[in-house]
Amino acid sequence: MKKFVMLYSLDDHKKYFLTITPEKIEKEKFFTTKDGKISLKEIFEAKEGNILKTHLGKKYIVFKPSLMDFILHKLKRLTQIIYPKDSAYIALKLDIKKGDKVLEFGTGSGALTSIFAWCVGEEGKVITFEKEKKFMENAKKNLEIIGLDKQVEFNLGTILEKDFSEKFDAVFIDVKDPLPYIKKATNLLKEGKFIGFLCPTTNQVSEVLKALKELPFTDFEICEILLRRYKINPDRLRPEDLMIGHTAYLLFARKYKK
Amino acid sequence: MKKFVMLYSLDDHKKYFLTITPEKIEKEKFFTTKDGKISLKEIFEAKEGNILKTHLGKKYIVFKPSLMDFILHKLKRLTQIIYPKDSAYIALKLDIKKGDKVLEFGTGSGALTSIFAWCVGEEGKVITFEKEKKFMENAKKNLEIIGLDKQVEFNLGTILEKDFSEKFDAVFIDVKDPLPYIKKATNLLKEGKFIGFLCPTTNQVSEVLKALKELPFTDFEICEILLRRYKINPDRLRPEDLMIGHTAYLLFARKYKK
Amino acid sequence: MKKFVMLYSLDDHKKYFLTITPEKIEKEKFFTTKDGKISLKEIFEAKEGNILKTHLGKKYIVFKPSLMDFILHKLKRLTQIIYPKDSAYIALKLDIKKGDKVLEFGTGSGALTSIFAWCVGEEGKVITFEKEKKFMENAKKNLEIIGLDKQVEFNLGTILEKDFSEKFDAVFIDVKDPLPYIKKATNLLKEGKFIGFLCPTTNQVSEVLKALKELPFTDFEICEILLRRYKINPDRLRPEDLMIGHTAYLLFARKYKK
Amino acid sequence: MKKFVMLYSLDDHKKYFLTITPEKIEKEKFFTTKDGKISLKEIFEAKEGNILKTHLGKKYIVFKPSLMDFILHKLKRLTQIIYPKDSAYIALKLDIKKGDKVLEFGTGSGALTSIFAWCVGEEGKVITFEKEKKFMENAKKNLEIIGLDKQVEFNLGTILEKDFSEKFDAVFIDVKDPLPYIKKATNLLKEGKFIGFLCPTTNQVSEVLKALKELPFTDFEICEILLRRYKINPDRLRPEDLMIGHTAYLLFARKYKK
Repeated sequence: MKKFVMLYSLDDHKKYFLTITPEKIEKEKFFTTKDGKISLKEIFEAKEGNILKTHLGKKYIVFKPSLMDFILHKLKRLTQIIYPKDSAYIALKLDIKKGDKVLEFGTGSGALTSIFAWCVGEEGKVITFEKEKKFMENAKKNLEIIGLDKQVEFNLGTILEKDFSEKFDAVFIDVKDPLPYIKKATNLLKEGKFIGFLCPTTNQVSEVLKALKELPFTDFEICEILLRRYKINPDRLRPEDLMIGHTAYLLFARKYKK
Repeated sequence: MKKFVMLYSLDDHKKYFLTITPEKIEKEKFFTTKDGKISLKEIFEAKEGNILKTHLGKKYIVFKPSLMDFILHKLKRLTQIIYPKDSAYIALKLDIKKGDKVLEFGTGSGALTSIFAWCVGEEGKVITFEKEKKFMENAKKNLEIIGLDKQVEFNLGTILEKDFSEKFDAVFIDVKDPLPYIKKATNLLKEGKFIGFLCPTTNQVSEVLKALKELPFTDFEICEILLRRYKINPDRLRPEDLMIGHTAYLLFARKYKK
Repeated sequence: MKKFVMLYSLDDHKKYFLTITPEKIEKEKFFTTKDGKISLKEIFEAKEGNILKTHLGKKYIVFKPSLMDFILHKLKRLTQIIYPKDSAYIALKLDIKKGDKVLEFGTGSGALTSIFAWCVGEEGKVITFEKEKKFMENAKKNLEIIGLDKQVEFNLGTILEKDFSEKFDAVFIDVKDPLPYIKKATNLLKEGKFIGFLCPTTNQVSEVLKALKELPFTDFEICEILLRRYKINPDRLRPEDLMIGHTAYLLFARKYKK
Repeated sequence: MKKFVMLYSLDDHKKYFLTITPEKIEKEKFFTTKDGKISLKEIFEAKEGNILKTHLGKKYIVFKPSLMDFILHKLKRLTQIIYPKDSAYIALKLDIKKGDKVLEFGTGSGALTSIFAWCVGEEGKVITFEKEKKFMENAKKNLEIIGLDKQVEFNLGTILEKDFSEKFDAVFIDVKDPLPYIKKATNLLKEGKFIGFLCPTTNQVSEVLKALKELPFTDFEICEILLRRYKINPDRLRPEDLMIGHTAYLLFARKYKK
């Protein structure tokens, strides 16, 4: 029995993530924050939202990490990740539902994979492909931590090398050069369903769009999503000084039967 | 047996939505587009993604409407709706999962309600409150059309008038004046879970934030999300001339046990 | 003696522009608004900021039109214009000063021309080229109205057909296909000075940038400027619902001596 | 005789600013970059845009600093500065012309002051007030370096303590708490002319707007300007990863005669 926990400092809002098992409690006894130690047993037994104190009296709240907490703060990044502002929109746009079979090419660190796994549930399946072995293994570990690995099938390589026996309810592609894979991806998508691409540059948007226009796709959308955060001060409300100016362009299209 | 269908014009990308039943086929026989008529029976029997022709030879594709299609183009709006760019982010931020019980106050036209219903699945429940009877009834009809009404409980009135026997996994409030409801909403939220607000104005953001800071909340986020669409032209790629400049500010916080 | 005047309705903020001469006063006697008539003589003699009343008692303020008023509301548009948010930045970035000689190719309706003329003053000169005769003549009329035509030389045609005896302190190009003109434009620019381009599409940005990188340019800047207006309501402060999502990309570079 | 010069590294685009006098040449002989030394005499005598080499063979271009170079890279900042994206728009919106008399309250480091001085020219005057002596002196030094100090009158204190004999063509206020100064500022502005405010927070926008609505002002504009820069790569065109998410809200209004 293990528990995945987030400790949240009420002082400086720092977040710590830890997986606790009875063995770990036995062996290590304490978790060390920058403000002192907390008993692992206490953390393990605490209810969500409870405050614990370090031996120096500093307050920490025990939270169950949300999926967004996990993606933004805990997931180990060996690649650029797809941010929640983008991945939430991608999942809705691709119309991913419980029980769906989703094909992802370009697992990266697994941030979007975890969103897809969250959407398809245990009845569904995410089939994900990654060319780099170390990225695939890292993504797998990431999804194990958040407990979403059961509905994911990790594949090493590209979608070209694999024979598929079924078509997918949605396909998403985020690889360095998507062009060689578009035809196969199209064949793997059910009629009536959506394909999506993450393109870092305008040049790639143009290229992918040109390729898709030769295939039985319609109902295109190209967009970018900007998230602007505000400072948490009711008397001096204003946006953060710096914001993320660009993550990626998103491109979507819907397949029909020619 | 009935079927909810979207007809998509390959010419001008116009979308038509219709619910077809055997009775309707019998009685009306045809669906009339601006480019001619199509047999209702053919539409009913068509597979997703198939092309049908009107009696004038114009091509229409038969799609199953995606949830986003429905929200953007079919859902009947008697109020401002919450757009997918916002609602997708809200659902992820509130960490809504299969089986969750979600409280929504301010059903409006049901756009966000449908997203919540999609997330909680049939094992979960969305309890939604709306002060205006005609809005509530409209929202109910909207959710029936997309088939998400079973996991939603519609309530007329505010959350103040109702006795609740259980706490919720997430609470979202989108009403004209949220201040009188914050305390009760807080009591109805489980410890460790998220509350969210949609605030149209900066003044309301300041007021709600001030109120929340007096209560056991932490891990605040205030943000706005901008969606910028691009024209579908690979050789002349550029954003749309006009964009939606503002829908709302989003405010989130997490409850702890004092 | 003539006077260029803006009438501003205190009721609905509508702006009327008129050029008044003694002859016009004599002949027409009145200016007709949607709320009644005002004596032209009174308008002519009014001081800036004074309120006049129509014969129906509606209040109008007499203002001298600012350059921005003129560009946004009065200048006759036969083409897309360059908006103040962009043109103000362009003028500052190109470092245009009193007495400068500026080359503009693509006069359009003269919106940017008027900004350049404002910056160089009577000691300077704006040499502008336009391929379409009707656009050139319209731009000329526009600049006459605001009184900035004296420091502008209007040329019909492209910069390729003309022999120049001197180099320029700044060059700005806004034409459909800029590539054939970049070499000549480069030769016409003084060393150490800036060239600027307005590019509507990302494809054109890439093309122009590629061409400039083959020439003695450095200190590049590519940017876009977004202006977001807010509603004038202190108690319900929020951005306008719609905003202009895209006007153009701006590209700047500085010439050195190879 | 002195010369204000920018050295621009062709390698890494770093900018160095230096003021060179015959005495400095005599005394120091060389300017030291991170890539080696360059003779001060050579720099002094170089034409704009010429390339010089360090004793290690690295190439540097000699440029005359543009006003924007100066503001962004050389001006000594003891305070937040007003960025060119904002100041260019402010100057155009306030309709500042050659010969105008402009009142600025809140000199800060002089960034906007330099723009105003550039616009009014030697025939005009910028009267600027600053409460902090060290800021005022720093701003003065900044404007001396760029050579725009002659048309600026620096005042220590607020506008309340001073008796003015004339009214201004434009007034701009950027101080921590503008409310106590709005009435006097209004009296100091000519009828028909613009007042402008820089407000860091939404709360201040609401307050200032409320105050202005009690006074003879109309033709309000509230806006914010976002500048989004792109990477200088034609084959992989995309925005910079980070952008400035907020500098300030700008508020403008026009005075009429009640």
